[in-house]
Amino acid sequence: MKKVAIVGVGHTKFGRLNDKGLMDLLCEASLEAIEDSNTTNKDFDSVYVGAMSPGAFNQLSGIASALVDKLSLLPAAADHIKNGPASGGSAVKAGFQAITSGMSDLVLVVGGEKMTHITTPGYVTSNVATLTHPEAERRHGVSLPSLAGLLTRAYLEKYDAKLKWISDIAIKNHYNGALNPKAHFQRTIEDFMKSAIQKGKGNWDDVYDFLKDDKTNPIIADPLRLFHICPISDGAAALILCNADKAKEYSEAPILISGIGQATDTHIVYEREDITILKALRICSEQAYKMAKKTPNDIDVAELHDAFEILEAVQSEDIGFFKKGEGAKAAHEGLTEIGGKIPINPSGGLKARGHPLGATGVAQVVELVWQLRGEAGKRQVDGAETGITCNFGGFGNNILSILVERI
Amino acid sequence: MKKVAIVGVGHTKFGRLNDKGLMDLLCEASLEAIEDSNTTNKDFDSVYVGAMSPGAFNQLSGIASALVDKLSLLPAAADHIKNGPASGGSAVKAGFQAITSGMSDLVLVVGGEKMTHITTPGYVTSNVATLTHPEAERRHGVSLPSLAGLLTRAYLEKYDAKLKWISDIAIKNHYNGALNPKAHFQRTIEDFMKSAIQKGKGNWDDVYDFLKDDKTNPIIADPLRLFHICPISDGAAALILCNADKAKEYSEAPILISGIGQATDTHIVYEREDITILKALRICSEQAYKMAKKTPNDIDVAELHDAFEILEAVQSEDIGFFKKGEGAKAAHEGLTEIGGKIPINPSGGLKARGHPLGATGVAQVVELVWQLRGEAGKRQVDGAETGITCNFGGFGNNILSILVERI
Repeated sequence: MKKVAIVGVGHTKFGRLNDKGLMDLLCEASLEAIEDSNTTNKDFDSVYVGAMSPGAFNQLSGIASALVDKLSLLPAAADHIKNGPASGGSAVKAGFQAITSGMSDLVLVVGGEKMTHITTPGYVTSNVATLTHPEAERRHGVSLPSLAGLLTRAYLEKYDAKLKWISDIAIKNHYNGALNPKAHFQRTIEDFMKSAIQKGKGNWDDVYDFLKDDKTNPIIADPLRLFHICPISDGAAALILCNADKAKEYSEAPILISGIGQATDTHIVYEREDITILKALRICSEQAYKMAKKTPNDIDVAELHDAFEILEAVQSEDIGFFKKGEGAKAAHEGLTEIGGKIPINPSGGLKARGHPLGATGVAQVVELVWQLRGEAGKRQVDGAETGITCNFGGFGNNILSILVERI
Repeated sequence: MKKVAIVGVGHTKFGRLNDKGLMDLLCEASLEAIEDSNTTNKDFDSVYVGAMSPGAFNQLSGIASALVDKLSLLPAAADHIKNGPASGGSAVKAGFQAITSGMSDLVLVVGGEKMTHITTPGYVTSNVATLTHPEAERRHGVSLPSLAGLLTRAYLEKYDAKLKWISDIAIKNHYNGALNPKAHFQRTIEDFMKSAIQKGKGNWDDVYDFLKDDKTNPIIADPLRLFHICPISDGAAALILCNADKAKEYSEAPILISGIGQATDTHIVYEREDITILKALRICSEQAYKMAKKTPNDIDVAELHDAFEILEAVQSEDIGFFKKGEGAKAAHEGLTEIGGKIPINPSGGLKARGHPLGATGVAQVVELVWQLRGEAGKRQVDGAETGITCNFGGFGNNILSILVERI
């Protein structure tokens, strides 16, 4: 199989971006990636766009066709790839296959979503809830947050874990996000607490008290509170992929995509043997490790899909970093901090970098590229040479894992 | 590059299918294709679903993830591919690349759409209109039918062609559809005329008079009338693709995908040098011919994208069968009938087989497989060995062409 290199990356600021539309964001990330690589418009064969719901959120169909024209990349082939909140990861895989198939030499992959302009209450979350099973789940009011709440309860009970440890993941990710100028939130939870105290909204002894306050941190899906759940964000991220043989033409520091995997699990969560096991992640990460000839021990940094903070704990186990049931405790003990045994989400993760659905799977890879190039600034993981992602479609029923390393 | 074979095909009835949902249709076509091939559920690596707007039409996201579970193909990778009315063709290309990349050995590709249950007036056409440019076109009321009307006017004037010739394409396609048990409409236009006369709705001397009657065939987008435009249909179609080296394991009569191309053109139709030239089709069909080492003279049968009958005329030129400006006349002269120089749309095309958006690009290939296997019944093109498609995304700004031949 041909080898695929990343020779350019782009990443807009994530957050509430009131003055930009979806196409603006896709263009901004794409142009930054093109600028970051030594390419010209005429070189591109294919463009893949990952986005979950641009029809519902932005009244835009055919966004890939529109983007390729707006970027003056005509007549490059263009397709829109959808896999719920893993649309970005699936777009990366599509770009990878375009090159390994021999059909394309140079590919632009961009993921993005624009949601914060929507003011109808519940519109975004109702749209996301269309990922659940229509008869067995959605009809009964089951949404993704409620499944995450159930997973948290099951995990805490089965593994004798503490909700405080799940909070520690949010605390760590907000700390990391505060070091990432592209993140949606650039404040630590201590910063949020101090700000609330200044505004006279309360008085807490420490950050755990703040996180238990029903007014500042209400329960969303018991036992998960607001700070255990990622925000609704706008943003886009982009990658330039090429045949690794030609990588040095386009970049001085190309990064190799050396493993990629994707697997599915039951649509109805209830049908899984054990809700606390992400079978699809076990399979797809094993595919990625096998393709790259690596093991979890080889990984220096990971970007996992913490749409809900429980997910980071569970994923850190099923991707092979910790034994089953020990992920939350490991986070509590600091093993997943920058400088820890295996730094997870130095970007701030979905919790603090934000989660513009289709952007996330691409942004995870962009963060790893920055880490592997040594360009991650204050959040740099020293000497990182190998990284892996988990991008999560639906509620764990379609997961991708992408493994990257220095050439 | 690895070679890719089609070893199974499935195709639901197209039409107003009141008793079935989108997932039912996707399953039915998929199971028929699996049945048609000598495969087992455990063999599949990947599933690609082509559908334009299942979110807007069916409140379903993550349809690929859901389908792979419903068909018991877990843990196969699953993605949803969107390219407007060319979503089916793009899904075929994605499946093709999954195999040529070496990542998959056996792939299910299924395209489908379910629309006729929608009763809100204008909902479907407004959704399709989101393919046009939001500022330069849609804002001013430009929809796909209106662009087709403009194209027809420009074509008739520039090439001194007659609207009657465009009607002849509809007459031919309804004639072919009457021979296709899967088609949405299985009546010739003469049948429609006789039925109207029986109901006392009018009295016409011949079919051309019937087609000029404002009540039975009203103008939709001048000069195009109802019978110049495809219907809104439900349906799905499926293909099983595999590495051609293993094709004989799965099928006694595998068909090769020997060429595939995709190209884009300006989003804003006004920006094209000549509205009557489909530049993207010229480029993508040239890619397909080149990959297959064929020329237009080698083609025995074609399935083109006649969402509006003018498009079949224009496409028959830009895909290389007729000189520019001679496509409509060629249809009028019978050259594109079954038994003619180059039979086009023996299936009935989008006009009579119907146009369940995401299904169409897959259904075109299914029809060619039936033709090449000699299984097309009353509409069989004698001795067909090589066929080609045109699948049209947006208004010609993203086109695929797929070339198939007997192994």
